[in-house]
Amino acid sequence: MHRHRLDSVLHRMAEADLSQMVVADPAALFYLTGTWMRPGERMLALLLTRTRPPTLFVNALFVIPIDLGADTVWFTDTDDGAAILARYVDPTRPLGIDKNWPARFLLRLMELSAASRFVNASALVDGARMHKDEQERAAMRVASALNDQAMGRLLTRLPDRPSEQQLARALAGIYDDLGADGVAFDPIIAYGPNAAEGHHVPCDRRLSEGDAVVLDIGCTKDSYCSDMTRTVFYRRASAEARTVYGIVLEAQAKAIARVRPGVRFCDIDAAAREHIEAAGYGRGFTHRTGHAIGLEVHDPGDVSAANRDRLQPGMVFSVEPSIKIPGAFGVRIEDLVLVTDDGCDVLNRHDKRLTIVE
Amino acid sequence: MHRHRLDSVLHRMAEADLSQMVVADPAALFYLTGTWMRPGERMLALLLTRTRPPTLFVNALFVIPIDLGADTVWFTDTDDGAAILARYVDPTRPLGIDKNWPARFLLRLMELSAASRFVNASALVDGARMHKDEQERAAMRVASALNDQAMGRLLTRLPDRPSEQQLARALAGIYDDLGADGVAFDPIIAYGPNAAEGHHVPCDRRLSEGDAVVLDIGCTKDSYCSDMTRTVFYRRASAEARTVYGIVLEAQAKAIARVRPGVRFCDIDAAAREHIEAAGYGRGFTHRTGHAIGLEVHDPGDVSAANRDRLQPGMVFSVEPSIKIPGAFGVRIEDLVLVTDDGCDVLNRHDKRLTIVE
Repeated sequence: MHRHRLDSVLHRMAEADLSQMVVADPAALFYLTGTWMRPGERMLALLLTRTRPPTLFVNALFVIPIDLGADTVWFTDTDDGAAILARYVDPTRPLGIDKNWPARFLLRLMELSAASRFVNASALVDGARMHKDEQERAAMRVASALNDQAMGRLLTRLPDRPSEQQLARALAGIYDDLGADGVAFDPIIAYGPNAAEGHHVPCDRRLSEGDAVVLDIGCTKDSYCSDMTRTVFYRRASAEARTVYGIVLEAQAKAIARVRPGVRFCDIDAAAREHIEAAGYGRGFTHRTGHAIGLEVHDPGDVSAANRDRLQPGMVFSVEPSIKIPGAFGVRIEDLVLVTDDGCDVLNRHDKRLTIVE
Repeated sequence: MHRHRLDSVLHRMAEADLSQMVVADPAALFYLTGTWMRPGERMLALLLTRTRPPTLFVNALFVIPIDLGADTVWFTDTDDGAAILARYVDPTRPLGIDKNWPARFLLRLMELSAASRFVNASALVDGARMHKDEQERAAMRVASALNDQAMGRLLTRLPDRPSEQQLARALAGIYDDLGADGVAFDPIIAYGPNAAEGHHVPCDRRLSEGDAVVLDIGCTKDSYCSDMTRTVFYRRASAEARTVYGIVLEAQAKAIARVRPGVRFCDIDAAAREHIEAAGYGRGFTHRTGHAIGLEVHDPGDVSAANRDRLQPGMVFSVEPSIKIPGAFGVRIEDLVLVTDDGCDVLNRHDKRLTIVE
């Protein structure tokens, strides 16, 4: 158990006047305990209260470290895990619920009237997770340095005209060679019109002259994630593609230039979006400008118009504007930034100038 | 949209007197629509009612087939997706909820008083999914045949004394060579004392003489899963290991011999468990005897003492008793079985006689 992280969450519970909450998400549990526990479809819950030690409810099938720093209540596949948990919950008070807990456990607690009401309390853990401590910042830098190297190696494979799937497989080998722990997410590798899809799954399409090539890749190293996107062109880029590329690159630069403590997430989003809209491509930018990242590739925290929270030192998020021209091509450029005391460090270093691969 | 599968679910809703429900789990949505949609942390929901066409609520970031056979309501990252969904729900009636929907969406619907109450309605889809149609049965046979081949090839790697991690990586290549789509789950490859853990993650341990080797592997092919476990021994097996192996093998045979329509899942569990308990190893068998399998490696449906449902033709599940001797070794033997009109087909063919690898 990371005592200072637990204390930070308990402090936030006190501020929110919440006396009990369930933490269940594997990343949130790793953040607090230093141990990955992935229960699959089985129930796993850490009950935090302000008066008793943290208590982990866990299926007897799993092995957990004996020095976890939490009391442990075991149950088996034939037990009603939620009913066992309910016995430890004060039914006269609200219970905080982890946002990602499968609905079936919450519905069962509701059936049992286990608490006076149920509230989404993940913000209390997520708020703590957004502020990376020194150990976390160092890990984020290492993961992004590996990702820079991987992007360089990946681009050397394009002249062989691999299919999207072949390139995705090659990436797994590249990460392995570089000593990464694995991919942080299934890479998005999209050629030509596929590059206009937001979340394209690599297929058997091969490179054709004039294709835009979107490469959205990330690895994990020591449990922390990297995430970077580059868009290059195969053999030639049309006049419109060059124009769009320049607009996206400038939008990203404007957004990054605004990053410093006190600025709102929505301001970062606006900086990118206003540039793209002014250039007449607003309809092609269909998503938020970025997302926080850390133990998860999408950590809690949007860089979007809806998020009016202010940046603080230690936050890490992506800045990834895009323009998609359906049926033709798309351009996305993404880097991770770490908020510093007076601005930000861009964690990715891979070249962003327009690149034509021969 | 698979019309006959949708009709089966709507029929079950009518029987349960439920007028509206949310289907959200990717596998459940694939079952109904024939399309995999994986929303990550974003909301995705198919609203089924008995009076209107199915309606899919989906983030504008995703691409879905135009012939999905459902009405579509789009929203963006800055919209409140659950609030948009709530407008389509009758607040005076109960709403069925998908068991795996992240709690945050359910909590938001509760805040909005979107329905008179919220009930776990996944059994209505899960019940339909348990009965594999002919197309699904054929896919399950193909996936398990690939898994048999993969197990054979994997065992040929043991004489090189790979680490658990190296063997796990080799498996990915074997599946690729065989034309599988990928792994159905992270393989459990456990040597020696690690074989006594239920869900061991492959580490850098290398084979030592006398090690038990648990190989729990599965691939997907055409969206359907395989799952098989074999336990072999490296160079020699102790007298106790041989005894335990024989007990587990006999327990599995007794359980499989009971599989036929009308028998209860708990009877299959009891057949294996009673044999192991009678042999004095009951404390070493800590989990359910098996699980249903199909689009997911753990499909809804336990082979456990808690499940009194009766077997019906077309159901597919694992039979996988084990004995674990903490700190020493473990033995698990697992096959998939398909319930037929008068018994079952065992989908795995790989040899189960005690095997010493040199």
